[in-house]
Amino acid sequence: MSSDDADALVISPDPLHPANLIPELCQSFYHLGWVTGTGGGICIRTEDKVYIAPSGVQKERIKPSHIFVLPYPQAASPHADRVFLRRPSLNLKESACTPLFWNSFELRDAGSCIHTHSQHAVMATLLWPGPVFRISHQEMIKGVRLGGTGKALSYLDTLELPIIENTPNEEDLKDSMAAAMVEYPDAAGILVRRHGVYVWGSDWEKAKTQTECLDYLFEIGVKMKLANLPTVLDG
Amino acid sequence: MSSDDADALVISPDPLHPANLIPELCQSFYHLGWVTGTGGGICIRTEDKVYIAPSGVQKERIKPSHIFVLPYPQAASPHADRVFLRRPSLNLKESACTPLFWNSFELRDAGSCIHTHSQHAVMATLLWPGPVFRISHQEMIKGVRLGGTGKALSYLDTLELPIIENTPNEEDLKDSMAAAMVEYPDAAGILVRRHGVYVWGSDWEKAKTQTECLDYLFEIGVKMKLANLPTVLDG
Amino acid sequence: MSSDDADALVISPDPLHPANLIPELCQSFYHLGWVTGTGGGICIRTEDKVYIAPSGVQKERIKPSHIFVLPYPQAASPHADRVFLRRPSLNLKESACTPLFWNSFELRDAGSCIHTHSQHAVMATLLWPGPVFRISHQEMIKGVRLGGTGKALSYLDTLELPIIENTPNEEDLKDSMAAAMVEYPDAAGILVRRHGVYVWGSDWEKAKTQTECLDYLFEIGVKMKLANLPTVLDG
Amino acid sequence: MSSDDADALVISPDPLHPANLIPELCQSFYHLGWVTGTGGGICIRTEDKVYIAPSGVQKERIKPSHIFVLPYPQAASPHADRVFLRRPSLNLKESACTPLFWNSFELRDAGSCIHTHSQHAVMATLLWPGPVFRISHQEMIKGVRLGGTGKALSYLDTLELPIIENTPNEEDLKDSMAAAMVEYPDAAGILVRRHGVYVWGSDWEKAKTQTECLDYLFEIGVKMKLANLPTVLDG
Repeated sequence: MSSDDADALVISPDPLHPANLIPELCQSFYHLGWVTGTGGGICIRTEDKVYIAPSGVQKERIKPSHIFVLPYPQAASPHADRVFLRRPSLNLKESACTPLFWNSFELRDAGSCIHTHSQHAVMATLLWPGPVFRISHQEMIKGVRLGGTGKALSYLDTLELPIIENTPNEEDLKDSMAAAMVEYPDAAGILVRRHGVYVWGSDWEKAKTQTECLDYLFEIGVKMKLANLPTVLDG
Repeated sequence: MSSDDADALVISPDPLHPANLIPELCQSFYHLGWVTGTGGGICIRTEDKVYIAPSGVQKERIKPSHIFVLPYPQAASPHADRVFLRRPSLNLKESACTPLFWNSFELRDAGSCIHTHSQHAVMATLLWPGPVFRISHQEMIKGVRLGGTGKALSYLDTLELPIIENTPNEEDLKDSMAAAMVEYPDAAGILVRRHGVYVWGSDWEKAKTQTECLDYLFEIGVKMKLANLPTVLDG
Repeated sequence: MSSDDADALVISPDPLHPANLIPELCQSFYHLGWVTGTGGGICIRTEDKVYIAPSGVQKERIKPSHIFVLPYPQAASPHADRVFLRRPSLNLKESACTPLFWNSFELRDAGSCIHTHSQHAVMATLLWPGPVFRISHQEMIKGVRLGGTGKALSYLDTLELPIIENTPNEEDLKDSMAAAMVEYPDAAGILVRRHGVYVWGSDWEKAKTQTECLDYLFEIGVKMKLANLPTVLDG
Repeated sequence: MSSDDADALVISPDPLHPANLIPELCQSFYHLGWVTGTGGGICIRTEDKVYIAPSGVQKERIKPSHIFVLPYPQAASPHADRVFLRRPSLNLKESACTPLFWNSFELRDAGSCIHTHSQHAVMATLLWPGPVFRISHQEMIKGVRLGGTGKALSYLDTLELPIIENTPNEEDLKDSMAAAMVEYPDAAGILVRRHGVYVWGSDWEKAKTQTECLDYLFEIGVKMKLANLPTVLDG
């Protein structure tokens, strides 16, 4: 593919094109405290392409021209030898989240995956020292889908999200994240202790609204714990 | 009514037309944390029509063309067989809040009703485990009206808001909400445990400012409880 | 004065004209949580006129045409028989804060006075149950001026703000506020228990930045109290 | 240099020119709570010039024409006899932070330095009463660079930031800040007790993202302390 053809992948007058949506959403996530200090991000998958923001940049200042485009599927889950349809001409690094985003595509058929460093998520991993975050009897649970891409949970379901341990290199989370996704097939996301959360959905709208619901549940769960209120009720 | 006539119901150059106001207000409510994750919303009633945002969508991204329009009054409170003057052409669902909004019209003659999932409201329902949230001696009480549509409360009045228990299906709250409104005729809103709050007023301005006052009172009430300060004083 | 002449008082292309500034500042104060639910506001005094926002309206939606203009000075501090140079043609009420704003003009020669319902101010009045809020050894103290219109405080000064008791009618605070201003001539503002704060300065910039400094000091003072940290140090 | 030539130093159509960036960034810092009440600010250094916002003004309302421009290097660290390439024509005072910003240039070869009064920074200095703020095992540590301008820290590094005691005059912090920078060569910033923080980087992007990471770490560190969670782990 020529360089011009590659650039055409991120040029569109449609505000809902992934190359336009990612900068807009990252700006909004910055104001929610999800992606400050270059952390966090979002990817969007179409039928045969994946759009990803670069690593290590100010997420609220991304432009469409900064977006990486990868083909989907790739022969192997991209780890070392990723294939790109387009790389930005600037000296930008590909996101270390790529293999983790790929987990959501391969194991859940997700169309979009969001990674935040929200303090609510991190505090939840500290106040739930075991391997699972659990909360029940909250209306916002109804905004989360079974496994992230299935049917909506009911008010009577207990929300469970596995918590995996952090690793020095983000890419090394790939296997433990995949293992947790297999062990908890109903989970709509994976918490990473002292780090943040990965949440996916069948498209960017559902990934975003589920991230909002989960972040709300982390926040209110933390408040409840600190106020000595039980976060899981019987029946 | 033809489809074109129906669409005309939500097209207006007037920024204060309900079809323009609802998207603008929902965007503002999103930033207040009232309607994240598709939860919550607002309806506005004119003399013979009710404008309602759709269910299950990102409330900060609603457009006038997404608005449902219902005739008012309807033969029966809309439960199963709702009549619509206009349904958006997209595959959007009507709001599950409709019968609850209707309570505010029928029992209080409200012109607008707001539903939030504010964490301040939910925390208030957790820290006030009984059937009523109570707070006194706060200046912001003066911004709330008797029954939501009557005269303004005085600084010397104790604000009381009933708390009803949540149900798995939002529409099933209709009867318990109506019962609480009858039992507490002075209440300007109804809290729903582990869910949020419904607040109404004679028009959208008063519904909105009363929601702001009540949300402020939930927030400061929660802070006071956690700091072991009494939330109701004598005399 | 004819109605046209009166309207000319609030029409100006200058963004720093009081009739343009008040709406802009109120919108900003709304996002700071200072004037939600119609509470709070700001007045600006020029050599011979006072511009005041109306009462009981959404402060973030005020327009220049909503502004009241009063002559300054008035024969008596305006209490019952206020004289207006301009009243908005809409059915808007004059601000109940007027006599309190007047205190800042008459006793401190202020050019602007701000009233907020900030929760930080209200929580400070609850956690400092006596007649004075006190905090020392905070850099932000240096942003506050002696008596509000004098020279800047030093880092070594202890900030003291009197707290007066709330009254059912806001206008009835006039005398106790004036008495506190006389008793505490160095205070740059007056806290009102369970209500909020009045802060003034020689112009709107100084009134605003001092309100920011004081609100910061209320907030951090409350956090320190709740963390059992001493808020006043010796020496 | 003529006055016109001097003014040309702050006029540029390029949004990334320091004279355009400083106002934009200060506005954004205001909304983060870093520079309210005129406190705090940012400077940007190019090869031979330093751009600094004025002192004692509303940081969210700075215009390019308000910017001071100093030559770099200056014969001596500017203390009393600063040389300016441009001073704004308005009656604006130079920033008292200038000698402190200069520390970051001379001791770390920084290209930009940010000073905030963030409450998270101040609370950290109160809850860490000793001479150093320490936190470990947080993903956001990876967004901070060794000494502010070196290589990125690892997740396994413990972040350490010295805390110096505040002085009545900001300029008097110069020597103790420099001493702390020499004693802690790996620190990316200096906390000032009861005052705020100074953070630098090789350019404005890195100074800003490191300030975001550190502010995040102060905030979560404070939350952890208040929840009795250990902030430093072994191994």
